Amino acid sequence: MLKAKIFVQLKASVLDPQGKAVTNSLHHLGFQNVLETRISKYIEITFSSDDETEVRKQVEHICDSLLANPNTETYHYQFETVE
Amino acid sequence: MLKAKIFVQLKASVLDPQGKAVTNSLHHLGFQNVLETRISKYIEITFSSDDETEVRKQVEHICDSLLANPNTETYHYQFETVE
Repeated sequence: MLKAKIFVQLKASVLDPQGKAVTNSLHHLGFQNVLETRISKYIEITFSSDDETEVRKQVEHICDSLLANPNTETYHYQFETVE
Repeated sequence: MLKAKIFVQLKASVLDPQGKAVTNSLHHLGFQNVLETRISKYIEITFSSDDETEVRKQVEHICDSLLANPNTETYHYQFETVE
């Protein structure tokens, strides 16, 4: 089996209002040395296949069509072999 | 500056309905070899401090009090030094 570990993140140029809200909360809680917070999705998908070339194509298709918004988000991923 | 890279994940024993919904969608899209999907939060916090011991305490406090639900979620993190 293969586990794809996928990070879906807002593009650097896109404002992250959820992250901004967390930064503000942290300042109110006294963490004045927090400069920035960015919140992203981390998705693990386990595939029954062991064919990394094939699964790689599937992961790209899945990210492009379902998990990431191509207008505002980027993604990257890595694989781990699982028993 | 230090960047904390924090993963907040549901405990393995906790059902992930959002992940289950993605798995179902993927099956409908034809990705029959998807066994499981788990969706987590990935949070990057940039601190103005370089004192890793101090920032580590702050990150644990932040996760315990704001980012993670101790009943259902676990977290782990690592640091990266940024310019």
